[in-house]
Amino acid sequence: MTELGPVDPPARLLMGPGPSTADPRVLRAMSAQLVGQYDPFMTRTMNETMALYREVFETANEQTFVVDGTSRAGIEAALVSLLEPGDRVLVPVFGRFGHLLAEIATRCGAQVHTVEVPWGQVVDPAAIEEAVVATRPKVLAVVQGDTSTTMCQPLADLGEICRRHDVLLYCDATASIGGNELRSDAWGLDVVTAGLQKCLGGPSGSAPITISPRAAAVIEQRKHVEAGIREPGDSDRGVRIASNYLDLAQVMDYWGPRRLNHHTEATTMLYGARECARLLVEEGLAEAVARHRRHGAAMLAGVRGLGLTVFGDPAHKMHNVVAVHIPDGVDGDRTRAGLLADFGIELGTSFGPLHGKVWRIGTMGYNARKDAVLMTLAALEQVLRAAGAPVTAGGGVGAAQETYADAGA
Amino acid sequence: MTELGPVDPPARLLMGPGPSTADPRVLRAMSAQLVGQYDPFMTRTMNETMALYREVFETANEQTFVVDGTSRAGIEAALVSLLEPGDRVLVPVFGRFGHLLAEIATRCGAQVHTVEVPWGQVVDPAAIEEAVVATRPKVLAVVQGDTSTTMCQPLADLGEICRRHDVLLYCDATASIGGNELRSDAWGLDVVTAGLQKCLGGPSGSAPITISPRAAAVIEQRKHVEAGIREPGDSDRGVRIASNYLDLAQVMDYWGPRRLNHHTEATTMLYGARECARLLVEEGLAEAVARHRRHGAAMLAGVRGLGLTVFGDPAHKMHNVVAVHIPDGVDGDRTRAGLLADFGIELGTSFGPLHGKVWRIGTMGYNARKDAVLMTLAALEQVLRAAGAPVTAGGGVGAAQETYADAGA
Repeated sequence: MTELGPVDPPARLLMGPGPSTADPRVLRAMSAQLVGQYDPFMTRTMNETMALYREVFETANEQTFVVDGTSRAGIEAALVSLLEPGDRVLVPVFGRFGHLLAEIATRCGAQVHTVEVPWGQVVDPAAIEEAVVATRPKVLAVVQGDTSTTMCQPLADLGEICRRHDVLLYCDATASIGGNELRSDAWGLDVVTAGLQKCLGGPSGSAPITISPRAAAVIEQRKHVEAGIREPGDSDRGVRIASNYLDLAQVMDYWGPRRLNHHTEATTMLYGARECARLLVEEGLAEAVARHRRHGAAMLAGVRGLGLTVFGDPAHKMHNVVAVHIPDGVDGDRTRAGLLADFGIELGTSFGPLHGKVWRIGTMGYNARKDAVLMTLAALEQVLRAAGAPVTAGGGVGAAQETYADAGA
Repeated sequence: MTELGPVDPPARLLMGPGPSTADPRVLRAMSAQLVGQYDPFMTRTMNETMALYREVFETANEQTFVVDGTSRAGIEAALVSLLEPGDRVLVPVFGRFGHLLAEIATRCGAQVHTVEVPWGQVVDPAAIEEAVVATRPKVLAVVQGDTSTTMCQPLADLGEICRRHDVLLYCDATASIGGNELRSDAWGLDVVTAGLQKCLGGPSGSAPITISPRAAAVIEQRKHVEAGIREPGDSDRGVRIASNYLDLAQVMDYWGPRRLNHHTEATTMLYGARECARLLVEEGLAEAVARHRRHGAAMLAGVRGLGLTVFGDPAHKMHNVVAVHIPDGVDGDRTRAGLLADFGIELGTSFGPLHGKVWRIGTMGYNARKDAVLMTLAALEQVLRAAGAPVTAGGGVGAAQETYADAGA
């Protein structure tokens, strides 16, 4: 093998649907040296991280911590710990990640029911309640923001519906948290999972999670302590959770006062997760959402100002991502590749029914900034023109600037 | 909440059974900025990481990559992808991590058989073959180095036994790899998983894995492409793997030429995993093992020189960790806490039958160094004396120095 040097990535402005460019402060936090798993500093850092994510999730839940894996690991931990084989689960599907929740629930052995709407729409809470009544699920599992369509599902009414029908409410907030309002306790969300790589300004690899007392009680009923570290009094309960790594009953014991050894905590990812939350809390949750709203609105105005048409229901668009139709005659992948090669700017492609039809443009986390929005629009204008698309000269940057001026930004 | 500052860990010398102090070069690599998931640089970095780990695992296996989670995620990915409910698995148990393999296999729905020996011993390959004949397993799952006892299971004969009886051979090399000989292809290991936090000098959070063609074929027979990203021609096969996140059939498609979207790769952990392997390959595998042998021998001589007695069969001790009996009358946890508070040095406690009876002292990864060995022995002498244990003044450092002198180091 040719001798390799240290990793040396090219400069990129990541304006796709995530991962987004990491906040340099988060990367600096991640270069801090390790301590041992039971060092008093480690315990303090874990407790601080729990407290910070309670603020991020807007919850008082004691059980608030991080799962050591990407956001998908957090989703699976929630579902495999809540669902026993044969349990019924209802999944509103309005994009790829609804399908993912349904598929993970299927692997848990659950009976999966879905309420589907075409991509680009969200699901009417009344339709969800109707399906709850019809299917009587143990868990309602819903994505808040599905980046595959850019839609943000309204959640405020779902907690009330779930309590009325004695259903647990799980929410995947990976793509939305930090950039869109998410009120775990006020909305009655029982379990919420997230990731760092969207609006939190960190790398993928750590999945923040919060678990309400009633969901924690359901999970605790399935606790089995590992054979190699059992102590007298540890008795097995309920149907064993099918995963060891993602067994939240064990992970809660690891983060809880018992500090029972489970995995070896991914310390560097923990430092990163802590810094993401610390910066968000320092900015203020409402301020961060307002920032994503402001820059998202500027990007929306900008792409329209360039003459592009937007995909999906704009009334339910997440603040942090917009999908635009690739103009007729433009080779979407080639144009994206040119933007990356010549300008160092990344836009996103799409999945499933939208593949080849839309680009997805993000304004999230560290990149929810005026200069990132304006540079992206200026460069996009150039590559669209070169690809032969009709574009309004200066129309993108101009429209975005007007939005900023109107907002006093 | 009190306002928190950036993470600022105290200086520590991690001389327990892992995590070990990270190589500063690995932490520097992890502070590099992100690129997108399908950036040409990302693809190149993934391919380089695959090539580097082929050298680390001493294999030609195409399927060599990292699982995004701690070493335990790698273990579970291997077992859940190989084992279908009802399959038989045989686990030699000589410490806590044998119990862990058995417990994870149980959660996979497998019929688990074990061959157990008392902690401090390894399992005779003849006894393993006898159990293979008696139980006819699909998979033999074995730990190479079990840090709970410090023992290193001989593996060289197991591949031949497994081929003779048509059994797949899985090995958990988390604690041993890089510090003890591990020859995946020469020894006929079908699947091997690891972690970064022991002899590789990185943080926990990424699990390198290698999969032989015959094991990959077994896993491929169970491939199901996700609903949200299916294309014509994608048909389901075999019994679906119970996990989505740890489904190696999907993860192989993500790392393979198809680059089929699965999780969002934990880019920062990937950078770290790449750097761990790059430094190891640069040093040379044989040289790294020799380094761990040399410093492990010095630590062994040193603890004996202090008058401590060693736990377990020294003929089968891993190079990178030693367990010593806590002297009579010494409060193990209090003495360890004093060493940490006053000298910044961490030793390990123990699990299960050894809890409160032995300390575990590591010399691994970045800390397999003369100064780390000598500082640890010098400090240990002080805290043992303060705790009232009979110690030979200068006996630890002196014995270690003699070992180094004999080795010409």
